[in-house]
Amino acid sequence: MNNDNGGRAVERLLLNCDMGESFGSWRMGLDAEVMPYIDCANIACGYHAGDPSIMRRTVALALQHGVTIGAHPAYPDLVGFGRRSMACSPEEIRDLLHYQIGALDGICKVLGGRVAYVKPHGALYNDMMADPLKLRTVLEAVAAYGGDLPLMLMATADNRAAQALGDEIGVPLWFEAFADRAYTASGHLLSRRLPGAVHHDPALVVEQAVRLARGDTLVADDGSALRLAASTLCVHGDNDSSVAAVRQIRQALDALESR
Amino acid sequence: MNNDNGGRAVERLLLNCDMGESFGSWRMGLDAEVMPYIDCANIACGYHAGDPSIMRRTVALALQHGVTIGAHPAYPDLVGFGRRSMACSPEEIRDLLHYQIGALDGICKVLGGRVAYVKPHGALYNDMMADPLKLRTVLEAVAAYGGDLPLMLMATADNRAAQALGDEIGVPLWFEAFADRAYTASGHLLSRRLPGAVHHDPALVVEQAVRLARGDTLVADDGSALRLAASTLCVHGDNDSSVAAVRQIRQALDALESR
Amino acid sequence: MNNDNGGRAVERLLLNCDMGESFGSWRMGLDAEVMPYIDCANIACGYHAGDPSIMRRTVALALQHGVTIGAHPAYPDLVGFGRRSMACSPEEIRDLLHYQIGALDGICKVLGGRVAYVKPHGALYNDMMADPLKLRTVLEAVAAYGGDLPLMLMATADNRAAQALGDEIGVPLWFEAFADRAYTASGHLLSRRLPGAVHHDPALVVEQAVRLARGDTLVADDGSALRLAASTLCVHGDNDSSVAAVRQIRQALDALESR
Amino acid sequence: MNNDNGGRAVERLLLNCDMGESFGSWRMGLDAEVMPYIDCANIACGYHAGDPSIMRRTVALALQHGVTIGAHPAYPDLVGFGRRSMACSPEEIRDLLHYQIGALDGICKVLGGRVAYVKPHGALYNDMMADPLKLRTVLEAVAAYGGDLPLMLMATADNRAAQALGDEIGVPLWFEAFADRAYTASGHLLSRRLPGAVHHDPALVVEQAVRLARGDTLVADDGSALRLAASTLCVHGDNDSSVAAVRQIRQALDALESR
Repeated sequence: MNNDNGGRAVERLLLNCDMGESFGSWRMGLDAEVMPYIDCANIACGYHAGDPSIMRRTVALALQHGVTIGAHPAYPDLVGFGRRSMACSPEEIRDLLHYQIGALDGICKVLGGRVAYVKPHGALYNDMMADPLKLRTVLEAVAAYGGDLPLMLMATADNRAAQALGDEIGVPLWFEAFADRAYTASGHLLSRRLPGAVHHDPALVVEQAVRLARGDTLVADDGSALRLAASTLCVHGDNDSSVAAVRQIRQALDALESR
Repeated sequence: MNNDNGGRAVERLLLNCDMGESFGSWRMGLDAEVMPYIDCANIACGYHAGDPSIMRRTVALALQHGVTIGAHPAYPDLVGFGRRSMACSPEEIRDLLHYQIGALDGICKVLGGRVAYVKPHGALYNDMMADPLKLRTVLEAVAAYGGDLPLMLMATADNRAAQALGDEIGVPLWFEAFADRAYTASGHLLSRRLPGAVHHDPALVVEQAVRLARGDTLVADDGSALRLAASTLCVHGDNDSSVAAVRQIRQALDALESR
Repeated sequence: MNNDNGGRAVERLLLNCDMGESFGSWRMGLDAEVMPYIDCANIACGYHAGDPSIMRRTVALALQHGVTIGAHPAYPDLVGFGRRSMACSPEEIRDLLHYQIGALDGICKVLGGRVAYVKPHGALYNDMMADPLKLRTVLEAVAAYGGDLPLMLMATADNRAAQALGDEIGVPLWFEAFADRAYTASGHLLSRRLPGAVHHDPALVVEQAVRLARGDTLVADDGSALRLAASTLCVHGDNDSSVAAVRQIRQALDALESR
Repeated sequence: MNNDNGGRAVERLLLNCDMGESFGSWRMGLDAEVMPYIDCANIACGYHAGDPSIMRRTVALALQHGVTIGAHPAYPDLVGFGRRSMACSPEEIRDLLHYQIGALDGICKVLGGRVAYVKPHGALYNDMMADPLKLRTVLEAVAAYGGDLPLMLMATADNRAAQALGDEIGVPLWFEAFADRAYTASGHLLSRRLPGAVHHDPALVVEQAVRLARGDTLVADDGSALRLAASTLCVHGDNDSSVAAVRQIRQALDALESR
C-alpha cells in the first residue's frame, strides 16, 4: 500500500469500519447492512464492547462477506465504551492487547478465519497517536503476537516518525484517513467542537474519499493543501445515513478502480 | 493414558493444579511454590480469576518449569469465583469457552507456548458433570477450537458414557481423580458437608495418590472397593500445607515410576 | 390497593414500567416517551443495566413527571441482562439487594426523591416467584432496608401464600398483572413458546387492561375464567408501538376512573 | 478539629484506615485485627474492591467496635484496584460518587449505621488533590448527597485553598497526615521511588504520629520544619507488622490524651 506520503495511490483504498460493538442485549451499529460494502472489520474484543456471542456473530458475518478481520482492542471500560483514557502501564497495555487479540483469534479460528490486523479503539488509539512511548508499546505487543499483523493507525501530514518506529519493530503500518472529517494543516482531525469539523453533505464525503483514493491533496482548515498517504479509509455503520454514505463511497471507489 | 476403567495403570499419573487465580491486586495460591511439582497447570482465563497480566506471569512460570498448560475457563462471575451455576445457553457456553481459550492461547503464543487441554472451572465443571447436554456442549466447543485438545473431567466408577461422548465428538478425555477426598461407591466425591469428606492426614493423601497411580482400588465410603481409571490427579497449591502435600505426592509417584 | 383476590377493584390500577435499562453508550427503551403515561418506574440499579449517570437521568425524568420510583435490582450479569438464573446464596441475594437499593436511593436523595418500592428484575424475579425460600429472602431483605417499602411481584390466581409471607415479614405487596400476555388457569403467564402467548392486537391489550382495572375476570388459555387481584399493570416502553399501547391503556384507565 | 494549619492540636487525632478491600473469594487486609484500634473505617464500595457481602461484613465489624464509617469510592477499575487515573467527566465523577456512597449507606442503614464521611480512593484521591476542578467536583457531589458529610483529604503545608473551597461549597474537611511517610517541604509525600520515603522503623512511625497529634512540626526531606494541620492519621492494616504499628500508635496517642 502507499505509505510514502506522496504520489499517486497505486493500490485500492480499503474501507475499514468498527464492528461488533453491541453488548449483551444492547444493539449498536448496522453491522449486517454495512458489511457488504467494506474491506476490513475492526471487531470489538469484549473490553469496550462485544461479548463472546456478539464477537462470533460478527466474525461469521465478516467471513461470509470476505471481509478482512481486525482486532479492535480497548482499555477495560464498558461503561465508558473505551473512550476514557486510563493510566495503564506498558505491561498492562501489552497484556490486555494480547488477551483481546487472542480471544478474537480463538473465535476466528473456530469459524475458519483469523485476526489479520490490529486497530486499537478509542482512548487507547488516541493515546497511542499522542504518545510515542505508547505507540512503541502497542507496536511491540503486535509484533510479539506474531503472524506479521499490521497495525492500523491514523495518517497525518507526516507519517515518517510512526513509519520509522514500525520499521524498527517490524510491524507493517496501515494508515487510515477519514472522508467525513475536516483536517488541520498538520493532518490531524479538526476538533469536533469546532464548526465544520464533520462533513454532513454526502457529496463532500464522497469527494474527499475519492481524493484520498487518488492520492490527491485535501484542503486543510487553514486553506493549505494537505496530502495524506493512507491505505485505508475509516467509515461508519452507526445508522442508515452513514450506511448510505459507505455505499456511495464504495461505488465511487469501484468506479475509480475500473477506469 | 489409561482410560479403560480397569487394569493396572501403564502411564504416569499426571498432577494437575488450578493456577493463576489471583486477580489484579489480590493474590491467591502459591503458584511459584507448587509449579515445580506438577505436570499440568489449569490457568484461569479472566472470567472467574486471572487478568491478562496474571495470566502472562502464570504462563511464563509454567513454561519455565516445562509444565503443560490447560485453559481453565469459567462462567463470567468474578464475585462468585465461577462457583455459582448460571443458566447459560449452549451457544453462550460455547462462545465463552472459545473466548477464554483463545485469550489464554494468545498469551501463550507470545511466550512460545500453547493451550494443550481444557478443564472447565467450578460451577461450569460441575454442571458439565451433572448434565450430559452440557458435557456435549463443552466437548463440541473444545473440538471446534481445533488442535485436538483433550478435555479434563472427573473420573467416576463408570466413565463409559463420558468416553462414548468424547469418542463420538472426537475429543480425547483426561479423567482426573482426587487424593485428598473420600469417594462414594459410584465414584463421586463425598459431599464436603459429610464427615470424612476431606483427608487431612498427609499419609492418607499420599497413599490414595499411590493407589490411584498403580490402578489399585480405593475404599468407598460404604466400604466397597472402588476402581477409578484416572490419568491425572488434581492437587492444590492454596497454602503451605497443600504445597507440602503436593511435594510428597510427587516424591511418592516418582519413586513408584523409578521402580 | 386491592390484594384480596376477588371483588371489584376499588383503587386505581397503577402502570409500572422497567426504566433506565440503557448502559454506557448503549440505549435501550423509550424512557422519555413512556414516562408521561406511567405511575411507577422500575429503575435498573447497575447490575443488569443502568450505570450511575443513566440512573441519575432516569430518576430526574421520573421526578419531573411525578412518577413513583422503584428499585429494579438484579443478579450481577450485564452480559445476560440479568435474565440468567445464578445460584446465589440467601446472604448474597440479601446483600446485592441492599447494595442496589441503596445505590439508587443515594441517587434519588440527591435529586429530592426516594426509592418507594422494590421489584426484582428478570431471573431474580422469576426465581423469587418459583421458590418460596427465595421469596422469603427477598421479603426479609426489603423489610430490613426499612421505610416500609412494598415488594412488587406477580399476581396469580391465588396470591394467598405470597400474601401470608408478606404479612408475616411485614412487607406490603403490590401484585402486578400483564395486559399483553395470555394466562393459564392458575394465573401464570402462558409460555412465550406457545402460540397466542403474547397479544399483538392493541384492542385486545387495552381490553385486558380494562378488565383487570375493573376487577373483571379474564379468560385463561383453557377457557376458564381467571380472576387476578392486581394493583398494578406491567407495561413496556421498548419501542414506538409499545409506547402507543401504554398511551391507549392510560386513556382507557383514565376514562374508567372518571366515570 | 484543628484545621488552622498551626498551633497546638486541641482535639484527638483520629486514626483512619482503608477497610473492606477484599473482593469475592480474595482476601486483603487484616480488618478484624486492626478495627479495634482505629476511629474511622474507609470502606470500599464495590468499584475498586468490596462486594456487597464484604461491605456488609465490614460495616458490621465497624459498628461492633464503634468505629465511624466512611465511604471510600473509586474509579470503576477492579483490575487496577482504582489506582489508575481515568479520564472521567465531572458528571461521571459526581454520579459514581453518589452511586457508591448510596450503596454503602444502604448497607449501613440495614445494620443501624450510616455513612459519616467520604474519602475518595487511589487515583480518584490523587486526581482530586492534583486538580482543583476535580476537588470542586468531589466537594459538590459530597454536598449534594446531604447529611453534612465531611470530605477526608490530604493535609499539606498550606491547606488554605482547599479549606476555602470546602467553606464555599459547605463541606467540612478532615485533613489527614501519614506517620509512616517522609514529607517534602510543601507537605507532600516524598515519592516512594526516593530513598527514605517510607519509615520502616516503628519507633520513628510512632514518634511522627505523636508529633502530628501534638501539633509539633516534622522535619521535611530538605531539613526544613513542616507543620501539618491534620485531624486524622491514615494507618494501614495490610499485614501483621502494620497492625502492630497501629496498636503502638493507638497506645501512644491514648497516653498523650490521658496526660
